[in-house]
Amino acid sequence: MASLLSSPHSLAPFTSHHHHRLHHSPNLSTLHFSRPIKTKPLRCSVSIEKEVPETERPFTFLRDSDDTTHSSSSSSSVRARFETMIRAAQDSVCEAIEAVENGPKFKEDVWSRPGGGGGISRVLQDGNVFEKAGVNVSVVYGVMPPEAYRAAKGSASDQKPGPVPFFAAGVSSVLHPKNPFAPTLHFNYRYFETDAPKDVPGAPRSWWFGGGTDFTPAYIFEDDVKHFHTIQKQACDKFDPSFYPRFKKWCDDYFYIKHRDERRGLGGIFFDDLNDYDQEMLLAFSTECANSVVPAYIPIVEKRKDMEFTEQHKAWQQLRRGRYVEFNLVYDRGTTFGLKTGGRIESILVSLPLSARWEYDHKPEEGTEEWKLLDACINPKEWI
Amino acid sequence: MASLLSSPHSLAPFTSHHHHRLHHSPNLSTLHFSRPIKTKPLRCSVSIEKEVPETERPFTFLRDSDDTTHSSSSSSSVRARFETMIRAAQDSVCEAIEAVENGPKFKEDVWSRPGGGGGISRVLQDGNVFEKAGVNVSVVYGVMPPEAYRAAKGSASDQKPGPVPFFAAGVSSVLHPKNPFAPTLHFNYRYFETDAPKDVPGAPRSWWFGGGTDFTPAYIFEDDVKHFHTIQKQACDKFDPSFYPRFKKWCDDYFYIKHRDERRGLGGIFFDDLNDYDQEMLLAFSTECANSVVPAYIPIVEKRKDMEFTEQHKAWQQLRRGRYVEFNLVYDRGTTFGLKTGGRIESILVSLPLSARWEYDHKPEEGTEEWKLLDACINPKEWI
Repeated sequence: MASLLSSPHSLAPFTSHHHHRLHHSPNLSTLHFSRPIKTKPLRCSVSIEKEVPETERPFTFLRDSDDTTHSSSSSSSVRARFETMIRAAQDSVCEAIEAVENGPKFKEDVWSRPGGGGGISRVLQDGNVFEKAGVNVSVVYGVMPPEAYRAAKGSASDQKPGPVPFFAAGVSSVLHPKNPFAPTLHFNYRYFETDAPKDVPGAPRSWWFGGGTDFTPAYIFEDDVKHFHTIQKQACDKFDPSFYPRFKKWCDDYFYIKHRDERRGLGGIFFDDLNDYDQEMLLAFSTECANSVVPAYIPIVEKRKDMEFTEQHKAWQQLRRGRYVEFNLVYDRGTTFGLKTGGRIESILVSLPLSARWEYDHKPEEGTEEWKLLDACINPKEWI
Repeated sequence: MASLLSSPHSLAPFTSHHHHRLHHSPNLSTLHFSRPIKTKPLRCSVSIEKEVPETERPFTFLRDSDDTTHSSSSSSSVRARFETMIRAAQDSVCEAIEAVENGPKFKEDVWSRPGGGGGISRVLQDGNVFEKAGVNVSVVYGVMPPEAYRAAKGSASDQKPGPVPFFAAGVSSVLHPKNPFAPTLHFNYRYFETDAPKDVPGAPRSWWFGGGTDFTPAYIFEDDVKHFHTIQKQACDKFDPSFYPRFKKWCDDYFYIKHRDERRGLGGIFFDDLNDYDQEMLLAFSTECANSVVPAYIPIVEKRKDMEFTEQHKAWQQLRRGRYVEFNLVYDRGTTFGLKTGGRIESILVSLPLSARWEYDHKPEEGTEEWKLLDACINPKEWI
């Protein structure tokens, strides 16, 4: 919601007429800069270098100059601490999933980019409990187009503008269980900085946080929904009483499948462009949210993973997975722009379910459990 | 390829910077007007009225004024004859599919729009041979935005422009068999006219044809691929020896999944914006192409529908169905714009397979049958 850049000039090439809200990509393979200027957001797509596989996890994906183990810059310190946080979150979520799986393990791919940055993709496929579980971290160094830089500086157009470097880091995960009574979970926490060289006067230096945790059941168990939202609210309330109601609504608005007039699931929290709070506070808030994933989700999976189900239950889950695919491929900014601008395809598409289904003109009968879920996706509710 | 409109002025609001080729939507629920102006196509999206279900098939979806049973206008005569042709094509394809199915029948939905036009959707789901077979016809009366009209007229901007009515009709079909050795087929033939009122001087009156037939096997049987392409070539060669090579390449270019650097299948023919030939000739050509669907496709299905297959064959087919979903939801103009501008959702998404699959980082081993298919999707071949 807060402004990233400071001038509304020269935005034409990066102006989207199609979107009223602005969201940074939940997927970090491609990055979008956006700020509200009346109704027209600034949006710049940035293509990035091809990734290279690595055989080992490095201690850090930060460039040497950012590695604060040996320095005291407070700005790069947030970068380093955010990377530490997302890698710890990846470890703890994977550990919790493997504990539930009781045998099957994550497969790990480590990759880097020649100019700096890289990532760790972990995927557990066709396990005992999960159809597909992906947990990725990535660190990206990129460059904003000069036009955005000039806009940001507000300088005269006769001044030759240079590109604006940026830094981004995030953890991103989608967990699709097999049992139709166990919900799908998605979470993503990310940190951005513009990173103009120190010797360029007036270069924009900004930072912001984004993220969220939302879940997508095929069947409603009110206890599960209340438990999930309560944990989100508790994480929010530790920092600001306005956060939960605001981010709950933002989540319902973002995960909206317009052509169906349905949300893809039962929500959670979603926020973006957050920088109008203390930076340390927002780092702590993101950390709290990431740490809430396991207590919010794992108890629900434990309760539902062994429930008996029929073919009809499974088919309905598969239809809802189809909606998940529709949202991710048609609307999700991270996915759609990531696909079009050269992100790591397999990391982007790990969010898709192992399988999905589309039946012609399927309409659940009024009053059925399937209808109740659909109704809650059409008319978002206050669960707590 | 031929120009629809006649002036390159005032095109800014309808200019797309993202696409080098122009294609009219294979799906008629939403219409896109485009013409080549150097590298910048004109593109106008048009929202259309909500459809209303009908209990019976009308004799025609044409407005009374277009129904040439009682008139002799040669322009509306092409409309009437095209509607007759696409409805006959729908009947003959559905009849051939039902003969293969030997029991299961198509379900039919008829709908109309208050302002004129309508359609017939026929779907056969979970049959003996087909997982999902959809064959739709539609007739649409719509209106182009005034800016496109002004551009077309080339009039001064102080003249108040009015909207330009248009007419469109088409048949569109996707057939997904169950057996992984039987290919998926898609075809679509469509006719467009701009339809300015007679009392508006200088109003654009244009027409053009578009369409194509392409197929998507999960496994290559060279005999099948040769047979399919030979029938396409024969249909083309009856009209112009340049058609097959030109439309074969156009097909390979259009059904391209950019983020994978793969075509979705093994091609066929695709053409659009065709009006630089005799109108009667192009009507006859479209009719010939539509009539070629059954002889091109049904013998292949008959040969493959009962072949034995393993779970691994089925999983590979499902992965290729995932690619089909990726193409349709991310790239296909008809689908993406149709979803965003209010077409009949169930008719648009009937093109999606009943089920699809996404495995993380799946790579067929070199030299396998799966690898051969993938190779042919990456490097389109001349089959005949």
